[in-house]
Amino acid sequence: MTKINLSEHIRSIPDWPKKGILFRDITPLLGNPEAFILAIDAIIEPYKNKRIDFVAAVEARGFIFGSIAAAKLNAGFVPIRKKGKLPYKTQTVSYDLEYGTDTLEIHTDGIKKDAKVLMIDDLLATGGTMAAACRLVEKTGGIVEGIAFLIELADLNGREKIKKHNVSAVLKY
Amino acid sequence: MTKINLSEHIRSIPDWPKKGILFRDITPLLGNPEAFILAIDAIIEPYKNKRIDFVAAVEARGFIFGSIAAAKLNAGFVPIRKKGKLPYKTQTVSYDLEYGTDTLEIHTDGIKKDAKVLMIDDLLATGGTMAAACRLVEKTGGIVEGIAFLIELADLNGREKIKKHNVSAVLKY
Repeated sequence: MTKINLSEHIRSIPDWPKKGILFRDITPLLGNPEAFILAIDAIIEPYKNKRIDFVAAVEARGFIFGSIAAAKLNAGFVPIRKKGKLPYKTQTVSYDLEYGTDTLEIHTDGIKKDAKVLMIDDLLATGGTMAAACRLVEKTGGIVEGIAFLIELADLNGREKIKKHNVSAVLKY
Repeated sequence: MTKINLSEHIRSIPDWPKKGILFRDITPLLGNPEAFILAIDAIIEPYKNKRIDFVAAVEARGFIFGSIAAAKLNAGFVPIRKKGKLPYKTQTVSYDLEYGTDTLEIHTDGIKKDAKVLMIDDLLATGGTMAAACRLVEKTGGIVEGIAFLIELADLNGREKIKKHNVSAVLKY
């Protein structure tokens, strides 16, 4: 097996979703089985020998690594969704966006009290969504053991918003 | 290991998302690691010894089983998204809903020509979204080897819309 450089499988797209933003596109990585597996193994590396009861992730891209992380850690997978998508009783949290607010939901029975929860997402930007997702998990009684990303956009200082948690990222830009 | 009955982990929710619909909620299954792994193994069972180059799935719930299926089959994962979510050049397909239309997109370079593609989703209802997703994969040059679901709502006759393909489902209601 040849050594894989994960960053070679991340495509940079200028001015997307708007002018001045350099978007890091992970779809080439997802499309390459070796790079994909290497990425997920690297994301969960800090938690491989720890007890994790649940992995939680925010739709939609968070589901891609979140569900595999859960399977690999022998944990349950708990989806966090935008408002109105989950069919059972939900706990909600709202958070500020650049313009307006957004709301995330989780099933009230998704996470057992005091369960150890690993939060997974592909990319840490401003940290606002992840900070809200952590509050949501805590509102349901879960304990956020850590937050693991594939990519961190360090310039945006997203760690500041989630600094009370253990945060890891495989690639930094 | 005790024998797991997958259907015991599917929760039925009456009148959701609207009156008269009995919604099959997979979140209890996702939250149980043994049931989750058993479900994904059952979904990909017909393709375990076949060559699959890519697994494609439609956001958001399709990503949950789709990404694990790709990893387990040593295939690349190709996300199919709603309009405007993918950052690179896309191929699009529109399809009719009960009221109005919806549009799906895939990256034009996501699937290589003549690649063998397995389509994955959690649930087959009317089949409209999956039929559109298959057309999209074919438009990019891929060959739809099969479509695998966890759940099929047989009364809705969704197989009719995708009958030219190999279709499998683990649970039928």
